[in-house]
Amino acid sequence: MSAKKSRDLAVVLVSGGLDSCVTAAIAAQTHELAMLHVNYGQRTEKRELQAFEDICDYYKVPPSRRLVTSLAHLKKIGGSSLTDETIPVSRANLQSQDIPTSYVPFRNAHLLSIAVSWGEVLGARAIFIGAVEEDSSGYPDCRLPFFQAFNRVIELGTRPETHLTIHTPLIHMKKFEIVQKGLELHAPLHLTWSCYQREDVACGICDSCALRLRAFQKLGVEDPIPYRERPVYTY
Amino acid sequence: MSAKKSRDLAVVLVSGGLDSCVTAAIAAQTHELAMLHVNYGQRTEKRELQAFEDICDYYKVPPSRRLVTSLAHLKKIGGSSLTDETIPVSRANLQSQDIPTSYVPFRNAHLLSIAVSWGEVLGARAIFIGAVEEDSSGYPDCRLPFFQAFNRVIELGTRPETHLTIHTPLIHMKKFEIVQKGLELHAPLHLTWSCYQREDVACGICDSCALRLRAFQKLGVEDPIPYRERPVYTY
Repeated sequence: MSAKKSRDLAVVLVSGGLDSCVTAAIAAQTHELAMLHVNYGQRTEKRELQAFEDICDYYKVPPSRRLVTSLAHLKKIGGSSLTDETIPVSRANLQSQDIPTSYVPFRNAHLLSIAVSWGEVLGARAIFIGAVEEDSSGYPDCRLPFFQAFNRVIELGTRPETHLTIHTPLIHMKKFEIVQKGLELHAPLHLTWSCYQREDVACGICDSCALRLRAFQKLGVEDPIPYRERPVYTY
Repeated sequence: MSAKKSRDLAVVLVSGGLDSCVTAAIAAQTHELAMLHVNYGQRTEKRELQAFEDICDYYKVPPSRRLVTSLAHLKKIGGSSLTDETIPVSRANLQSQDIPTSYVPFRNAHLLSIAVSWGEVLGARAIFIGAVEEDSSGYPDCRLPFFQAFNRVIELGTRPETHLTIHTPLIHMKKFEIVQKGLELHAPLHLTWSCYQREDVACGICDSCALRLRAFQKLGVEDPIPYRERPVYTY
């Protein structure tokens, strides 16, 4: 118990999706957890918040170490199908190299800035974010060099006594490896929500559902959440 | 008129204070203006918003190019006398090298992230921010290396076709040089608000008032805004 108390604190960005859930499971191996959830006016905001709270409960994160905030201005700024209902959500095309319509301009910089401000006040030593470079549909703010450059900004832009570093444990994993890691660490994958489009049952056809379903299918494991459609993604 | 239309667009961060007003005046020499104002739960939020709108009007910025947002989570996170009313505002000590209580952890990263997201959607080419290295009371996120590192984050974290660069035209100026520049460019200094503590008349004794008053006093020019006290700052 006292050994546990002496571990460093980490702020984990938890959207409520599969990647962030597995990231929390990885962070929990070495750090005490503080969990941060950010609404940014996305269509599935309520369902994701529910998943966040469920994951916090699972990891017994006390209320003082849960922060839910919103970035309403990202909806005002628009430019993404996730926050602007006049832009349709693209049907999944996992082979395209284009930046999909769900890209929220520079979103991760906002999330990291909140994590850094909170982490600085809490005296945390690490920020964990479940970004994935290869499987992330080409979002420019999901690549390792972006996070490395951001670490430099943190070093220069915080108090001299603050030592906060971004950890991206999933960055070079493929989706099926993330699922595998989650299963191995007993991450509560059944509590997660990934769909960009629906809040009752996952649609099964948006980018995010497609990537997730394909990963479970590759492992021959059934995804524990309900879907409206479960296409087989063989490519 | 058509020559004016072809100029690049800049997003200018306008708090409503003296520095941001002079920065807008500088940006207006070379760019079309879009103006961004961010509330973050600071004590003088309403008065600063008024100053923002007045400065926008002065520069004839159309409504579609004004964005007012709020970062309510910075108040939730706390850690600063500007946003946490349990922490007293320090009385000015212009010779101290300590980070003052008004430091909002990592604030400029939040402001820049919003400017970048909006700038990317608008197709802007520049972000102007009125940060000042020497006169800024030692805030770590007001120094040139911080902005240089952030430019790298923008380059890596936005679409390949986005070319947005942060401009900090005041970064190496002293406060009296900023006032001088503002007078030279006919910046509407009478519309600005700098006080950290009051909204009716400026207090004259917080860090921000002290820096401003000292600058006008050095130039032998009367500061056009009303003060509750006007101490003479000779050091």
